[in-house]
Amino acid sequence: MTEYSTLVVEQEGPILWVRINRPEAMNAYTATMGAELAAAFDHADGEDSIRVVILSALGRVFCAGADVSAGAGSFDTESGEGAKNFGARSEGRNANFIAAIMNCRKPSIVAFNGSAAGVGLTLTLPCDIRIAADNAKFGCVFTRRGLVPEAGSAWFLPQIVGLSQALKWCLTGALVPASEALEKGLLAETCPAEQLDDRARELAMEIATNTSPVAIALTRRLLWRFSTDADPSGALSVDAPLNIALGKGADVHEGVSAFLEKRAPNFPSKVSSDTPATPWWPADPTARRQG
Amino acid sequence: MTEYSTLVVEQEGPILWVRINRPEAMNAYTATMGAELAAAFDHADGEDSIRVVILSALGRVFCAGADVSAGAGSFDTESGEGAKNFGARSEGRNANFIAAIMNCRKPSIVAFNGSAAGVGLTLTLPCDIRIAADNAKFGCVFTRRGLVPEAGSAWFLPQIVGLSQALKWCLTGALVPASEALEKGLLAETCPAEQLDDRARELAMEIATNTSPVAIALTRRLLWRFSTDADPSGALSVDAPLNIALGKGADVHEGVSAFLEKRAPNFPSKVSSDTPATPWWPADPTARRQG
Amino acid sequence: MTEYSTLVVEQEGPILWVRINRPEAMNAYTATMGAELAAAFDHADGEDSIRVVILSALGRVFCAGADVSAGAGSFDTESGEGAKNFGARSEGRNANFIAAIMNCRKPSIVAFNGSAAGVGLTLTLPCDIRIAADNAKFGCVFTRRGLVPEAGSAWFLPQIVGLSQALKWCLTGALVPASEALEKGLLAETCPAEQLDDRARELAMEIATNTSPVAIALTRRLLWRFSTDADPSGALSVDAPLNIALGKGADVHEGVSAFLEKRAPNFPSKVSSDTPATPWWPADPTARRQG
Repeated sequence: MTEYSTLVVEQEGPILWVRINRPEAMNAYTATMGAELAAAFDHADGEDSIRVVILSALGRVFCAGADVSAGAGSFDTESGEGAKNFGARSEGRNANFIAAIMNCRKPSIVAFNGSAAGVGLTLTLPCDIRIAADNAKFGCVFTRRGLVPEAGSAWFLPQIVGLSQALKWCLTGALVPASEALEKGLLAETCPAEQLDDRARELAMEIATNTSPVAIALTRRLLWRFSTDADPSGALSVDAPLNIALGKGADVHEGVSAFLEKRAPNFPSKVSSDTPATPWWPADPTARRQG
Repeated sequence: MTEYSTLVVEQEGPILWVRINRPEAMNAYTATMGAELAAAFDHADGEDSIRVVILSALGRVFCAGADVSAGAGSFDTESGEGAKNFGARSEGRNANFIAAIMNCRKPSIVAFNGSAAGVGLTLTLPCDIRIAADNAKFGCVFTRRGLVPEAGSAWFLPQIVGLSQALKWCLTGALVPASEALEKGLLAETCPAEQLDDRARELAMEIATNTSPVAIALTRRLLWRFSTDADPSGALSVDAPLNIALGKGADVHEGVSAFLEKRAPNFPSKVSSDTPATPWWPADPTARRQG
Repeated sequence: MTEYSTLVVEQEGPILWVRINRPEAMNAYTATMGAELAAAFDHADGEDSIRVVILSALGRVFCAGADVSAGAGSFDTESGEGAKNFGARSEGRNANFIAAIMNCRKPSIVAFNGSAAGVGLTLTLPCDIRIAADNAKFGCVFTRRGLVPEAGSAWFLPQIVGLSQALKWCLTGALVPASEALEKGLLAETCPAEQLDDRARELAMEIATNTSPVAIALTRRLLWRFSTDADPSGALSVDAPLNIALGKGADVHEGVSAFLEKRAPNFPSKVSSDTPATPWWPADPTARRQG
């Protein structure tokens, strides 16, 4: 069992709650937090009883961004003051949690209990669905600190909100209210802060109780992998054979039976043992695709 | 003249109405329907008097998804119970209608007279414009049956609604109301069901009466082909020479004259004989692009 | 100092105002205008005192499209009547202003004082942010003249509004009101015409007073270059080393100090001399990317 110093990680039925736990520091990001996030998603990937990950935080803020407690030199990460919080990060360990979230065969929902700035926002972009307390604010504040958008957000953010919106948020560096983040597609929903956990749980349970674990694992990878292709050929070359293979299996028989019998399904598949091979999914989705 | 068993196909002036016609089976999709959709779009492509295709359906549902009348084994398509409805489909014939819609040099408008689920939704994604009756619902229900999104929708859907929205719909598998589908960009418009045909006709006639057939044929291909490029170079390498060539021709002379004279244009071009070569458009847009 | 015949170009503090100035011809586009737009953006790129470009126009129209004063043969550009206005343009000089806008290390805001049609709209798509007077209309009118969308808009427009919306606007060729352009993401904001200059200035000053010039130069290029990649690997391979390098520098020290001291930052960097090399940015972003 992993010990976490910056997170509280708890399983509730089919849900793994991952909560950032540095409220005294406005949940500011450190290299340790990045490594622990990777560990939590790796755990979710391997544990069949976990169907959905919910990423949230304790306290009134989701994550204020990178820890700047070392002062003006906080981002002087190689040998300067920033080495304390980001030494490991400067070795490129940032990519760890991104790869872990993308590789995780369980979908992830971010529940922003409060505001998120800088890496506090960008670390959530590899997750699948984002909802937020309606008083939360969001800031791509990098240019206001003299930095560039990090954690691959020059790629992630435009996939989610389009190029123009991503440019506007990154160039001004302004904090935007949850209502704007919802309207522009960064968020799927907002609700009052006190209802956020319930709504995240409801969404997670909608997935956990209605869908096939193996189908979900494959669907995440299909969309993340093929949405950026030049044409539909890659998706077609994979989705048709997969459905032919799945169509003979127990999950599809159960899914169709449940549908015809108007009852809830009870899918027998286990992600760990029953997921077909996905040779089209790169071992490290953050490393350059070959070919 | 093709005989259709699953469609009603009728030309009304410059419009080809293609209506799914299995209302007794909630217009459920079969391999025969896929082949007939391909034939209808191939016909529209070759017939100069057709300017726009409208794809709709008879009855109160657009298409309930794949035919599951064979029961729990409906998707056991190679030699199981599903072979009856999908035998041909399991040979990859699904791609037939996708290629036919993408290749068709006439634009297509989908008029959802009612709800669409599974392939009933995804078969419409290669069309250009979607409108719907405001009581229709839409479901990427694949994961609820144990399947993955098919017909290339892991590529098509994110082009239309962005990656996050596509993930949310595909991971939950939930039915979403027309209002949400409109807000997220899957639909261009909604209207009361009884006004749908009129609105689709109006939109089709707006194209048919105001635009050059050859310019439309080229514009469809330009956007479908170059929107996913890494940069604007491909589009620029084609659009500038095309406009130089078109600029000398009769359609542009007519288009500019009509504009200056504030009258409706009467474009002389025929798609079959007057469309410039498009070597940058692949013969089969569902086959992997080379180079 | 460049002399402009089709533009009025004035610096106001950190803002370069570039105003199209052919109001007697509804600001119609000519090859000369294209070349002068390129010159204005090249000037902004090289002048450290300029932080943001605002592109607008004089009179009640932004730009009515290509100049058709030569009549029906206006687009017969090689040796016909169109050679007068577009002779240079037919040599591919269109790409000049696109490359200049994309290469410019200063962000650009378009302030549509009035309607924009054809190239009057598409010439603004390489800019970063678009706002408009709420009575402006926008038209991808190419197909109504017998032409195809030009200036790379088959690539640019779908990056901004998605493929389906781009198809709808380009296939109908209709004028759409500012409210629709706002809703679909072409515009970031609208306001009454008489408030437009103030709002554009406010947005420009928000960037100029709060952000690092070098961080902005790099951020523009990161998003334009990597948003269309197949995966986040390209962005990650660049953003992490850049932030390590920037983190040691004076701008980040100032940005973090200002944040911690709750005061406005005063970034010392100059784009001309302090921008790190960007070997991943092509010399000509409108020429095909290799590799």
